Amino acid sequence: MPIIAVDAMGGDHAPEEIVRGVADVSLNTDIDCLLVGDEARVQAVLEQGPYNPERIAVLHAREAIAMDEDAHEAMQSHRDASILVALRAVADGRADAVVSAGNTGACVLGAAKYFRLLPGVRRAALACVHPRMTEYPGQDPLALLLDVGATVRCEAAELIQFALMGSAYARRISKVPNPRIGLLNMGREDAKGGATLVEANQRLRAQPMIDFVGNVEGNDLVRGMADVIVCEGYVGNVVLKLLEGMAEVLQDVVQAAAERKLVWRVGLRLLSQGIERVHALTDFSRYGGSPILGFDRLFIKCHGRSHARAVANAVKVAAKAVRDRVPAEIADAIGGVR
Amino acid sequence: MPIIAVDAMGGDHAPEEIVRGVADVSLNTDIDCLLVGDEARVQAVLEQGPYNPERIAVLHAREAIAMDEDAHEAMQSHRDASILVALRAVADGRADAVVSAGNTGACVLGAAKYFRLLPGVRRAALACVHPRMTEYPGQDPLALLLDVGATVRCEAAELIQFALMGSAYARRISKVPNPRIGLLNMGREDAKGGATLVEANQRLRAQPMIDFVGNVEGNDLVRGMADVIVCEGYVGNVVLKLLEGMAEVLQDVVQAAAERKLVWRVGLRLLSQGIERVHALTDFSRYGGSPILGFDRLFIKCHGRSHARAVANAVKVAAKAVRDRVPAEIADAIGGVR
Repeated sequence: MPIIAVDAMGGDHAPEEIVRGVADVSLNTDIDCLLVGDEARVQAVLEQGPYNPERIAVLHAREAIAMDEDAHEAMQSHRDASILVALRAVADGRADAVVSAGNTGACVLGAAKYFRLLPGVRRAALACVHPRMTEYPGQDPLALLLDVGATVRCEAAELIQFALMGSAYARRISKVPNPRIGLLNMGREDAKGGATLVEANQRLRAQPMIDFVGNVEGNDLVRGMADVIVCEGYVGNVVLKLLEGMAEVLQDVVQAAAERKLVWRVGLRLLSQGIERVHALTDFSRYGGSPILGFDRLFIKCHGRSHARAVANAVKVAAKAVRDRVPAEIADAIGGVR
Repeated sequence: MPIIAVDAMGGDHAPEEIVRGVADVSLNTDIDCLLVGDEARVQAVLEQGPYNPERIAVLHAREAIAMDEDAHEAMQSHRDASILVALRAVADGRADAVVSAGNTGACVLGAAKYFRLLPGVRRAALACVHPRMTEYPGQDPLALLLDVGATVRCEAAELIQFALMGSAYARRISKVPNPRIGLLNMGREDAKGGATLVEANQRLRAQPMIDFVGNVEGNDLVRGMADVIVCEGYVGNVVLKLLEGMAEVLQDVVQAAAERKLVWRVGLRLLSQGIERVHALTDFSRYGGSPILGFDRLFIKCHGRSHARAVANAVKVAAKAVRDRVPAEIADAIGGVR
């Protein structure tokens, strides 16, 4: 049974929502969790509700890295921060994967410090799971975009590896046996996007191991055209934050409508199913976190605003990825190309 | 009085909606328009409704470039295409600016062929006007993003010029006397985004002529933080198409809701003001087109899906830009830095 190290102190709603998510997992699954953080605070939250003590252990960490701290500096000044203690627990073999909703920079830098890149992997990638419209019944409503910030600028060789890593992850974790891979570009034509993207397109077309659908454009991100979309970290990060920003604006507008006028509240209720469909496209909190790919160990990053449900989902995803040996799958995919 | 050359054959709804937009302008303003396209078809549409014949002339062009044609090839094979005839009319001094809703690649390549870069301008930029939430009453609900596809990858010097050009344009065309400029990046901190963006950030901070607010992130695009946002063409193009894609998905969902169920139609009616606010954020057709900046002549590009209202707005924007001598403003801004 996998053991998941969960950073109890990372995230906007830590430790309360993190601990509650883990408590829920302990009652409903056979996954063991190592809750890493301020022992007294973690234990106090645990005691507020039901949990299965046989599936949870607490590992004390006397420090925490705040969401807005500079990650480079915090890594030096808070060497006993919960996220770093959790990473070391996995590196030492005391747990199998890390889940954190904390400071993204610290998560990525920490993974680079305590985990090892898989043989042949040039750069790690932070992937993001994002909602989209589906094109056929049964299609996964989530797609994977990588990189979203771990590697600012990429060469073609790195984009190829991101495609292989994302494909291996989606094959195991999504409902897609043969994920469709797209290259984020400024036009569908193969010759678009400058030298790096043209080379990446050519090399992806030549890959027998993946189902490359060609270049995809910004609007394809919200459609079902590709299950895994690869790009350099700069553009991926801008896209991710824009998607989140659009979602926030929509939620603000709906919220303002609901608060201001009874007639709008009635209208919203009548529209509940329609709103639900938009909500499913914009609710980044309900699903299970985004993997950092390329290391020998797994890291699932939750959104900073995650509540218990998202944390529980992330822990389940991490456990599934461990059971399905995702790092070995990725190593095989990368190795098969060299 | 400015004369605007309008490509009557470019756009998903050409020539009908284009000609209708120009007819409307002829009745309600003192702007003269040169309608460039298939004379018989243009005249036939004109005769369907009221227009002021004193303000409209038709310039025949026997060819047109389709929306999905390869721009490079079409430039060679359709030398008498309406967009190229319109560009030559402006280059020859028979008109002052071009408006087109046609093939974007042909518009950009055509402008590069028939217009001249202003002294000192390294690369032209295609700007896009996009809706966003406003932060204070009276703020322009539209912001300018450039480049969105004319220059795939940029050096710092080009990003600086885009900021100067965008600022000059917004000063004249928007309601903002001192536009706030943002650099699209993957974090607010000055050190983010790799060497090119770090250098661009430093040089923008040192510019006395513009109000640089620093790095902005993807989510800031839908907020009111900056009035002009600069980036390389690759990421700008992805962002623009993602914004459009989100808008289409939302409109589809609302449309589907309205069609399927009476109770949803009632709900939508009750929510009409709230929907209107979302609609204002997502309706790319109601406003007036996006400038290609950096040339001695003006080009206003309309969205391919533009209807008469958007075309009329674009013609008015083009006329205002000519009257306000926007190219000279841009030349001054660029010259002041060299």
